[in-house]
Amino acid sequence: MNQSQLHTLLHALEIEFELKHLPSDFWLDSVASVEQATSEQAIYIQDSQHATALSVTKAGLVITTAHIAQTLDKPCLVVDKPRYVFAKIAQQLYKKTPVFQGAHPSSTIAETAQLDVSVTCESGVHIGEHSIIGANTWIHPNAVIYDNVRIGRDCLIGANAVIHAGTVIGDECLIESGVVIGGDGFGWEMHQGQWHKVPQVGRVMIGNRVSVGNNTCIDCGALSDTIIGDDVIIDNLVHVAHNVELGQGTAIAGQVGFAGSTKIGRYNTIAGQAGFAGHLSTPDNCHFLAKAGVTGSVSQTGAYAGFPHQPYKDWQKMNARQRQLDKMAKQLKQLQKQIDALSDS
Amino acid sequence: MNQSQLHTLLHALEIEFELKHLPSDFWLDSVASVEQATSEQAIYIQDSQHATALSVTKAGLVITTAHIAQTLDKPCLVVDKPRYVFAKIAQQLYKKTPVFQGAHPSSTIAETAQLDVSVTCESGVHIGEHSIIGANTWIHPNAVIYDNVRIGRDCLIGANAVIHAGTVIGDECLIESGVVIGGDGFGWEMHQGQWHKVPQVGRVMIGNRVSVGNNTCIDCGALSDTIIGDDVIIDNLVHVAHNVELGQGTAIAGQVGFAGSTKIGRYNTIAGQAGFAGHLSTPDNCHFLAKAGVTGSVSQTGAYAGFPHQPYKDWQKMNARQRQLDKMAKQLKQLQKQIDALSDS
Amino acid sequence: MNQSQLHTLLHALEIEFELKHLPSDFWLDSVASVEQATSEQAIYIQDSQHATALSVTKAGLVITTAHIAQTLDKPCLVVDKPRYVFAKIAQQLYKKTPVFQGAHPSSTIAETAQLDVSVTCESGVHIGEHSIIGANTWIHPNAVIYDNVRIGRDCLIGANAVIHAGTVIGDECLIESGVVIGGDGFGWEMHQGQWHKVPQVGRVMIGNRVSVGNNTCIDCGALSDTIIGDDVIIDNLVHVAHNVELGQGTAIAGQVGFAGSTKIGRYNTIAGQAGFAGHLSTPDNCHFLAKAGVTGSVSQTGAYAGFPHQPYKDWQKMNARQRQLDKMAKQLKQLQKQIDALSDS
Repeated sequence: MNQSQLHTLLHALEIEFELKHLPSDFWLDSVASVEQATSEQAIYIQDSQHATALSVTKAGLVITTAHIAQTLDKPCLVVDKPRYVFAKIAQQLYKKTPVFQGAHPSSTIAETAQLDVSVTCESGVHIGEHSIIGANTWIHPNAVIYDNVRIGRDCLIGANAVIHAGTVIGDECLIESGVVIGGDGFGWEMHQGQWHKVPQVGRVMIGNRVSVGNNTCIDCGALSDTIIGDDVIIDNLVHVAHNVELGQGTAIAGQVGFAGSTKIGRYNTIAGQAGFAGHLSTPDNCHFLAKAGVTGSVSQTGAYAGFPHQPYKDWQKMNARQRQLDKMAKQLKQLQKQIDALSDS
Repeated sequence: MNQSQLHTLLHALEIEFELKHLPSDFWLDSVASVEQATSEQAIYIQDSQHATALSVTKAGLVITTAHIAQTLDKPCLVVDKPRYVFAKIAQQLYKKTPVFQGAHPSSTIAETAQLDVSVTCESGVHIGEHSIIGANTWIHPNAVIYDNVRIGRDCLIGANAVIHAGTVIGDECLIESGVVIGGDGFGWEMHQGQWHKVPQVGRVMIGNRVSVGNNTCIDCGALSDTIIGDDVIIDNLVHVAHNVELGQGTAIAGQVGFAGSTKIGRYNTIAGQAGFAGHLSTPDNCHFLAKAGVTGSVSQTGAYAGFPHQPYKDWQKMNARQRQLDKMAKQLKQLQKQIDALSDS
Repeated sequence: MNQSQLHTLLHALEIEFELKHLPSDFWLDSVASVEQATSEQAIYIQDSQHATALSVTKAGLVITTAHIAQTLDKPCLVVDKPRYVFAKIAQQLYKKTPVFQGAHPSSTIAETAQLDVSVTCESGVHIGEHSIIGANTWIHPNAVIYDNVRIGRDCLIGANAVIHAGTVIGDECLIESGVVIGGDGFGWEMHQGQWHKVPQVGRVMIGNRVSVGNNTCIDCGALSDTIIGDDVIIDNLVHVAHNVELGQGTAIAGQVGFAGSTKIGRYNTIAGQAGFAGHLSTPDNCHFLAKAGVTGSVSQTGAYAGFPHQPYKDWQKMNARQRQLDKMAKQLKQLQKQIDALSDS
């Protein structure tokens, strides 16, 4: 990326920026950490923690704030949100595109499937009847897409991912390796000592710009649909049960689990290994700490922790008190002794 | 499904039933929720919660109890267990069958494998030497079945599932997408700073009507076998270590984990993210709450929660007390003051 | 394995051993449990627990300690570490080798990939551009190996495993079924209500003799690399986020999760469902109990438990006290009454 291409990108982002100290032969080919960057690599710095490393960095471009740039005698790009601009520059530098369009000879595409001419199906891909795949979508090796699936444009479906029948996926989604979308929900009825399967006939409806991490599972709805809103991002090994709804912009870390029919508001952030019971709801902008066990609906926006969950500050206080329990028990004993002495006197 | 077909199904179930208000042109093609059902769809209602929705439903058949049916002027099917009957009707309406029998040209079937003529192997399937697959079993795309596996009749092996050598699976089992059965157990011995693998030579033995959810892993036994009883149902992303035994009819929710050699009784129900230490046992009919951490054998049937686990009621009481800890600490302080005052007086 | 072959193996192990009571026609073909072993099977016994079973075992070879062998009138192999020797004997008895070398016709190997002539690629395997695979490495069906991957000698890559671009794997590694290595880390930046992906450009660097369990996910680094040391063993369904470092010889049980940039020391042992927050470190030789939630760096070697984590002994004491909370609350009430009575008198 030369200086002119950088300008074009920055203008497209519609942000204010200033470029300082750029050499005439400016050229970026990749990004790196502050410590390891070379003269053709961009780095970003948002705070003053890395001051020492920054003073010796060999980076070709330091993306940073006006405050840090003040005292910096290196090529730099001054913006309000360095990490965001770094991300957009890196996206352009690392843009991956398939080496061919169309279907690899080892893939199996149903005759009734409708693939845009710009779609790529890598080796071993299976696409079922009547499925519709949008422009520039890239299906990675051995992914399995069942019948009647609709996938938008500019999506990536990862290697060995499985998209079950009827699933609807929007545009610019990233479904990573080994993900299973639209598998059967866990709906059973016990009768005479046997579990009888309640057919799961709903779909999974996924919005735009959704990302689903490796080996995560999102089950189809039982009767109505499981719904993943626009801009939801999900990490690895997450379990999303039938009829869950995840609100727009919600971010979910690794190994989180949602039981059936739970509805998470917009822009929630949920840390690793948290779990949500079924049939509950949360408002917008909540934060749940790691390993939280949410056992009922949350009515107020805020941070929650623990199992059963409670407001984060209460949980912190409770944790502190728990660690004083031994001391408290000894105090109790001591008080009893004092009282006994008083009674005897 | 017309009225005559419905009658045939209901008689086959050997249950008592009554059909009321059915129109002469009765016809069902699918099921739906109370709110969304149209005139060719069945719904079920087991309690009076949905009274309002029920009063305006357009469903072609309401499967419900005698009590609710009393006041209902709509086509209805009166039975003792509406959800069970709904499940059986839906199973018939949504019966999925493969579009071909035999092996897809892109599949790789060992010459010594014995597949019933009614077996379907979809694209990219691998079946190893001497494996035996029963009638009507349907192997989905890119599933891998190793050598010497035995799978019964009427099973479904999901897309990208892996069944390791020697595994035995009964009839009518549902192994969902991405499941790994018979992978090596975690058996190692440390010697001179290196872990040496203890070969895992046992098998996984799975009974009849077992269901295993997406991306779940069931390891093979170390020496003897890992055993999954009849009618066990397992949700997504569950970890079953070597030599675990899961008793008949036990139901296991998402992200539960079992360490090695643990033996779960019959008809246990285990909620999400619970974990069991190794070498313990539980009796029949236990219930374990979400996130429970079971650290030793359970001797009495009941409900258990917490980590380390305790009877559910004790755990509830403990939780309540924990939230009063701050108050208790302040009370202690107050008592101390009062005693000091008494002592001084 | 005859007696001469057994001798050869034992000498190669460079350990002291004694063989007693071996029949002239000694022959081993497999291993088994004490209870089920027959005359051509080896067993091991390390403690006196199985004394009764041992007295009636039909095993062809009992691998045991000098102490137990003293009173044993059966064919036995006396060594210091019976389970280690058992593992090495079993490794030889159960050595699995592919039935062919080279690439199965249904596999897709990039022309620029460099595979040693002894490599086996099973059906449906995909290998990308410029990837290099070492001698005797065995790629199982439907595994996907992207571009620029380097895999050493004598590795096994499991069925449906996915190895992303740039990953480096050492020698003698075991990557089990459904594993995803080098998937994108969870790096995002929020801007105007949308999450923008921060490209993950680091790699995963895996040492020698590393084992990764079924459906586990190890993400690539954001800028620098995710590093798995030599002799690390990882169980099923574990989540390793970007830039995590796992020290040599560390053992990780099922469903453990590591958030980004956390550095685990050497020879840590981590029990099931434990979770580690990001950007923390642990020293060598720590042990973490099941379900531990490690929220910050650990400075001293030891055993830790609970969430937030604390030294195991403190956690045990706290647990015991928590179960006395109800009693303590009642005691408090009683003390208050006594004090009130004293004050009134």
